[in-house]
Amino acid sequence: MSTPANPLRIDADRLWQSLMDLARIGATPKGGVCRIALTDEDKAGRDQVVQWFQEAGLAVRIDEVGNVFGRRAGTDPQARAVATGSHIDTQPTGGKFDGNYGVMAGLEVVRTLNAQGIQTVAPLEVAFWTNEEGTRFTPVMMGSGAFAGVFGAEDICSQQDGAGITVGAELERIGYRGTVACGDVPGGPFAAYFEAHIEQGPVLEAYDKPIGVVSGALGQQWYDVTVTGMDAHAGPTPMDLRHDAMLAAARMMDAVNRIALDEAPHGRGTVGHVQVLPNSRNVIPGQVKFTVDFRNLSQDGLDRMDLGMRTQFAQLAAQCQCSVALEQVVKFEPCVFHADCVASVRHAAEQLGYAHMDVVSGAGHDAVYVHGVSPTGMIFVPCKDGISHNEIEDAKAEHLAAGCNVLLHAMLERAGIA
Amino acid sequence: MSTPANPLRIDADRLWQSLMDLARIGATPKGGVCRIALTDEDKAGRDQVVQWFQEAGLAVRIDEVGNVFGRRAGTDPQARAVATGSHIDTQPTGGKFDGNYGVMAGLEVVRTLNAQGIQTVAPLEVAFWTNEEGTRFTPVMMGSGAFAGVFGAEDICSQQDGAGITVGAELERIGYRGTVACGDVPGGPFAAYFEAHIEQGPVLEAYDKPIGVVSGALGQQWYDVTVTGMDAHAGPTPMDLRHDAMLAAARMMDAVNRIALDEAPHGRGTVGHVQVLPNSRNVIPGQVKFTVDFRNLSQDGLDRMDLGMRTQFAQLAAQCQCSVALEQVVKFEPCVFHADCVASVRHAAEQLGYAHMDVVSGAGHDAVYVHGVSPTGMIFVPCKDGISHNEIEDAKAEHLAAGCNVLLHAMLERAGIA
Repeated sequence: MSTPANPLRIDADRLWQSLMDLARIGATPKGGVCRIALTDEDKAGRDQVVQWFQEAGLAVRIDEVGNVFGRRAGTDPQARAVATGSHIDTQPTGGKFDGNYGVMAGLEVVRTLNAQGIQTVAPLEVAFWTNEEGTRFTPVMMGSGAFAGVFGAEDICSQQDGAGITVGAELERIGYRGTVACGDVPGGPFAAYFEAHIEQGPVLEAYDKPIGVVSGALGQQWYDVTVTGMDAHAGPTPMDLRHDAMLAAARMMDAVNRIALDEAPHGRGTVGHVQVLPNSRNVIPGQVKFTVDFRNLSQDGLDRMDLGMRTQFAQLAAQCQCSVALEQVVKFEPCVFHADCVASVRHAAEQLGYAHMDVVSGAGHDAVYVHGVSPTGMIFVPCKDGISHNEIEDAKAEHLAAGCNVLLHAMLERAGIA
Repeated sequence: MSTPANPLRIDADRLWQSLMDLARIGATPKGGVCRIALTDEDKAGRDQVVQWFQEAGLAVRIDEVGNVFGRRAGTDPQARAVATGSHIDTQPTGGKFDGNYGVMAGLEVVRTLNAQGIQTVAPLEVAFWTNEEGTRFTPVMMGSGAFAGVFGAEDICSQQDGAGITVGAELERIGYRGTVACGDVPGGPFAAYFEAHIEQGPVLEAYDKPIGVVSGALGQQWYDVTVTGMDAHAGPTPMDLRHDAMLAAARMMDAVNRIALDEAPHGRGTVGHVQVLPNSRNVIPGQVKFTVDFRNLSQDGLDRMDLGMRTQFAQLAAQCQCSVALEQVVKFEPCVFHADCVASVRHAAEQLGYAHMDVVSGAGHDAVYVHGVSPTGMIFVPCKDGISHNEIEDAKAEHLAAGCNVLLHAMLERAGIA
């Protein structure tokens, strides 16, 4: 049993084994997983996890957009549930851990409590959310967004993939179009929601910490930028008579970097996509389109980045005798997780004696949407070289176990032991 | 007749009409011309020009690589020919004037002399060179390069297009595989070669000069550059842990511009082609490939640019925790045209009362290869907005006539009136 000196721990081997078992469904030759939302592979993965939920005694509930919840009763029938979860859909060349870890960790918490015969005061729930990755159907984080009321269930069900097939039709086909209204939880909204996830970045590894106490998630503002000059023959056009869209764009890319560095440590600026026209070796580019991805932990910070970009881009375009047009295409507001949930994660890590550090999530997660309707916190564990969305995504069994132990104790703190 | 006060002039309307007639062969709906080397359209264009040559009394000679020469006898059977020419092949979406102008101007010189009954001491020749554009078959400026001995005729004839068809087979098919050895001219190498061409740049228009006296052509050094970093998720990867290949490449592109500006007025630096991997909006690029096109009027200048680039690229790559690899893929040496030919062009412009300025050619031309084996000069006339290799390529009839008048008098000065 658990004592202050020797706290309860999950079964690290069982957790690892369930991750490896789940990874066989949609396994790729390079060691990754392809289990795209609402495909046959997703159905097979869902069926497996639901079977495990039921074997662990969880009561399974499915909502209108295919989110699945497994509930373990508490001793207080009036108490609101303490929940955890993540997603089991993957990128086309995804890994074994992104999302899957959070769901298997939740299952392992339940199995551990079952094995130890521990009852909680509040009910516990383990969820997996539909289509977090957004590979086949947009928007990303579809299920948790609908659960939080950001999207309407009907709108979500009418979203189409590239072949014109709707989310609703695919949910029907694979048997996961439930009847529970989105956001409806027996006894009322979650008392707390925790999500364990691989970091998908290099910070924990760089600082050699097995546990990241996630204080919040960066807001995101994405832009499409078009720089227009005049294409001309690279030889006969002297430097001073050029309208070189690539030169202007290159200087803007450097400005994106400087703007992000000015917002250290949380500001991030990335140019990931570039298209050059006509893209010919001896023609001065007449047009360059590129993307900007700005992230920051405060809306004030994002506003400063937006203004700095608009001001500098206009100057740099004029400097190169070009024009520039900007369109904002995505916006996610910054999120600061609930102080009580963050404290429970930190307390659990301390109780367990794990080295830990406060981190922010640079990526979006289902937890960010759930945060809109319930107190929420996240637990990060390191992943190898910070790589995810990749078949070589990897994580150490000891780190995965540490994160799961932290999840166990954070949930127990919020739910109370009966 | 010609007097110092009223020098002989070509027939501007006839020159314009022959340009418009030739432009009907391979005409495109947008007003341009598509007459790619050694296609049926090229054959039709060649047949038309040869017919005009013969109607003008020129003796036609075809060499092993399909270069065509029309010869007008001089009074001195020992004298070496004074020649002119250019090309009639075009880009896929080419214009009416690039190349075609130089050939029609040469024909107009002959027609003018015929109409005035003027005999020259030296023979005159009008040439058109095979495959200047290099669109279907490489290398570019194939015919003049073979004429100058830079390429072997057999090597050229075995060059293949994308479908595996050889230059030799296509020359046979269209009836232009001649028997004259490349570089073989009756009476010996040209005494002088002049090429009239649209500028393909904006300088003459910007300075409002109808005539450019071309003093030389820029040397060219082209490179393929590969910047390698590490692709990573744009959100969770802090700025200081990135290996952002796009950031490094953007700074290198700015350096290319500064290196060229340091070599004003003749230095030119262009990044025309860019490829980003994986080119996804929210992924830090792991690799960027781009091209560099450096031009300058001296080899010393090109050497400085090369060294500056290598030094700065290495520093910029290291600054961004990336690596860089450079490969030089093309080299054309700078060319200074023959002082006597340049003087004849300038003298003709002065004699005719045309505003003129010394310019350099930023692009390659057949004249640059011919310069290797004979004294050579070029005449530029303005083209609208400096645009060529484009269906909207345009030039004013009065400028084309002026350039042709300069060609006439430059050739007469070198050939001598009998």
